Amino acid sequence: MSKTIGRLVIVRHGESEWNKKNLFTGWRDVRLTEQGVQEARAAGQLMAKEGFQFDLTYTSLLRRAIHTLGLALEEMDQMWLPVEKHWRLNERHYGALQGDDKKEAVKKFGEEQVLIWRRSYATPPPPVDITSEDYPKADRRYANLSDAELPRSESLKDVLIRVMPYWENTIVPQLANGKNVLIAAHGNSLRALMKHLENISDEDITKLDLPTGEPRAYRLNDQFKAAEARYLNDPAEIARKAQAVKNQTGKA
Amino acid sequence: MSKTIGRLVIVRHGESEWNKKNLFTGWRDVRLTEQGVQEARAAGQLMAKEGFQFDLTYTSLLRRAIHTLGLALEEMDQMWLPVEKHWRLNERHYGALQGDDKKEAVKKFGEEQVLIWRRSYATPPPPVDITSEDYPKADRRYANLSDAELPRSESLKDVLIRVMPYWENTIVPQLANGKNVLIAAHGNSLRALMKHLENISDEDITKLDLPTGEPRAYRLNDQFKAAEARYLNDPAEIARKAQAVKNQTGKA
Repeated sequence: MSKTIGRLVIVRHGESEWNKKNLFTGWRDVRLTEQGVQEARAAGQLMAKEGFQFDLTYTSLLRRAIHTLGLALEEMDQMWLPVEKHWRLNERHYGALQGDDKKEAVKKFGEEQVLIWRRSYATPPPPVDITSEDYPKADRRYANLSDAELPRSESLKDVLIRVMPYWENTIVPQLANGKNVLIAAHGNSLRALMKHLENISDEDITKLDLPTGEPRAYRLNDQFKAAEARYLNDPAEIARKAQAVKNQTGKA
Repeated sequence: MSKTIGRLVIVRHGESEWNKKNLFTGWRDVRLTEQGVQEARAAGQLMAKEGFQFDLTYTSLLRRAIHTLGLALEEMDQMWLPVEKHWRLNERHYGALQGDDKKEAVKKFGEEQVLIWRRSYATPPPPVDITSEDYPKADRRYANLSDAELPRSESLKDVLIRVMPYWENTIVPQLANGKNVLIAAHGNSLRALMKHLENISDEDITKLDLPTGEPRAYRLNDQFKAAEARYLNDPAEIARKAQAVKNQTGKA
């Protein structure tokens, strides 16, 4: 290969209204909080400071990620870049837990069970019924998905399985062509990608948190795996944020 | 043709910092003012109120139009829609006048001459030199334009000539396929399109203003010309805005 592989940066959306309220969000299309907006801008400023010049950007079909990307691009003065939005970058579908308060869920299902759903790699929460508002068949943005594609609940493993075709078929060819890529997405779609890129075990990925609004920059090897991975922000700040997440009742 | 032709709505970006300062803007990439942000949101609310459900959206490579589109989509809860950004929807390149105060330009070139540049259909302002910052050859977003495509100054006629291929080759096929289309762009790229759609004469188009942030909705005939065209807002409000523009020293 003669072309230098492009750079990759991933960033999780800033704080959402439901992060703040401690509700299971999944595919529910909630807004950023004012703090989330500030996190998104700060992410853009960090990338601008390091001089990142992207060619292509990718995000999900959920407004908290789309908005984060838009704000970051604004701060980088790169609003003119192409933005491709795809459901495969969506947050994990949280099944019957979507919309539940995390503490309520613990009361209803027991702490151990909720922890398994939140933290196990391969166990999805109970699926939603196809009559549920959380089965988004009627939502125009998912109209082109087949019944087999449209999730009723997902484990992190399920997320990885649906993220990978988009990574391999859409994003990797652009990186191979030397394009610099920015992905703004969600805790679980990005952890799935990190698991792949950084060869993280099924066990270890369940303990790994991705802080909101913290750009993580990669250099890729010729297998399109991580040769180098680092947060752009100060490591002490990353550690502080990770600890804050651990102290919450929940995440995602 | 068996498919119903899609609906078309066009909207000019909200007030920009340079509209407010009364400077010739053209391809300079200035921001919306706070009023411009409010206008963009109001445009989205008007479209939401009438129940517009778009399939595809188009804008320029300039942030004031991109931002207007983003805010309008946010208000419509349609942020997930595809957005295609293209230089052919950019504002008219204002040549050597870009960055000039409109009153200064009058002093420098005379009122009559400036009026000709502002209001004639086919007379471009003096071209910028290729060493000028207003010849955006070095700007990454225009890197794929040939020297022949990259303007050094444009009349409204020049704008129409470069908008038309994008309209015919990119947007019309989608409308023909039944897709509903929203275009957020600029005073002159949209007046060029209006001239085409509404069969406006060279003479009449020079007197026509398109108010900022006011969605104009079309039904198209099978020639993709206007069968019906109307502003979504109250006609009295449109008239008030048009008068306010006429009372300014300048526009664009």
